[in-house]
Amino acid sequence: MNEGVIVRIDGVAAPTATDRKRAAIVEAATHRFLRQGYDATRIDQIAADASASKQTVYNQFGDKEALFRQIVLGATATAETFAAALPASLDDVPDAEVPDALRTLARRYLATTAAPPVLALRRLVIGEATRFPELAATYHERAPALVMAAFAELFARLGARGVLRVQDPAEAAHEAAQHFAFLVVGPAIDRGMLIVDVAAPDEASVRRTADRAVEVFLAAYRL
Amino acid sequence: MNEGVIVRIDGVAAPTATDRKRAAIVEAATHRFLRQGYDATRIDQIAADASASKQTVYNQFGDKEALFRQIVLGATATAETFAAALPASLDDVPDAEVPDALRTLARRYLATTAAPPVLALRRLVIGEATRFPELAATYHERAPALVMAAFAELFARLGARGVLRVQDPAEAAHEAAQHFAFLVVGPAIDRGMLIVDVAAPDEASVRRTADRAVEVFLAAYRL
Repeated sequence: MNEGVIVRIDGVAAPTATDRKRAAIVEAATHRFLRQGYDATRIDQIAADASASKQTVYNQFGDKEALFRQIVLGATATAETFAAALPASLDDVPDAEVPDALRTLARRYLATTAAPPVLALRRLVIGEATRFPELAATYHERAPALVMAAFAELFARLGARGVLRVQDPAEAAHEAAQHFAFLVVGPAIDRGMLIVDVAAPDEASVRRTADRAVEVFLAAYRL
Repeated sequence: MNEGVIVRIDGVAAPTATDRKRAAIVEAATHRFLRQGYDATRIDQIAADASASKQTVYNQFGDKEALFRQIVLGATATAETFAAALPASLDDVPDAEVPDALRTLARRYLATTAAPPVLALRRLVIGEATRFPELAATYHERAPALVMAAFAELFARLGARGVLRVQDPAEAAHEAAQHFAFLVVGPAIDRGMLIVDVAAPDEASVRRTADRAVEVFLAAYRL
């Protein structure tokens, strides 16, 4: 990637040498943690992979635990972006087109969740949950639980519009969100947690799984 | 437990000293692996916990990896028992009582799956899946996938009886099984993987979650 070109187009400051070194360290550390786990990963390996000195790693990130935390919590940005856009995403969709919009949404949700790097990170966090219970709980809060709350808000809005049979209390919307979410991504997460070399599902498979999940969801929830 | 009494009632041989020692080693190793993970667990800790010598552990189980495999795969017995009884379990239930029977089944499935020791073992296997991919895949095959196949067979039978809308091909029955399973246990597994000190759900919560999941399932699948 030619960063000089990007600077001219965007008019933002070019990444400094420090930014580039930080990015290289994060990439090397992510790769090591995912492949070897927390215990077997050493700062000197990360430093060597990133062509940095150990001292640079320590100066930039603190110790191994601090680096691990930053990587795990940094990876929740995708979930945060997805969740932020979700509640209002069907506001302008006419009632009759809501089923189609839910299918599109389900396909996107499944494709994102079943991506091998996303599954690998979840596997890593689960594996270290006994050692770092508070980190795993924070990851849960900022990724799966955040997305679930956003789905609940979406379904509450569709309930209020009279498109879905979702009652007033927040509990009902949350339950609808869980039904939707696990119909769509349950099997992919289950396999992806235990079968390590699982490939990303192809487009036809994502479409079929998402569409059948939405069909079951709508059979129960469509007014 | 007074083993002498059991022997007189059942007429089977009393456990030998070797059986008791093996059981103590398995219990100690399970506890250590679940609490500390694979890497941090040492055979001498397990031996001390079980009041055995290191040599006894090696003689009985081989090395740490062999002991770990035996514990993980030994824990699939519950799933195997559950799965074996599942396909024919509703054969004698009249059509009108199938919904009630499915609710009972869903409650039992959820209570078993959401039990803290079951969740802890799954967390451990996921955490070691990168190191032992073939062991994690075997665990998947002998526990979640086996139970899924048994649900598929159950729903194929109910489809053939005309109680459920499950078409002929095995794929449709498998899809119905996945929908049923993840509606029932999806949220509990998701939370249980990332939130370490999660308590077993109380009976009322199991009942409510299971019943609502079956309601959604039947809305889509009941003929």
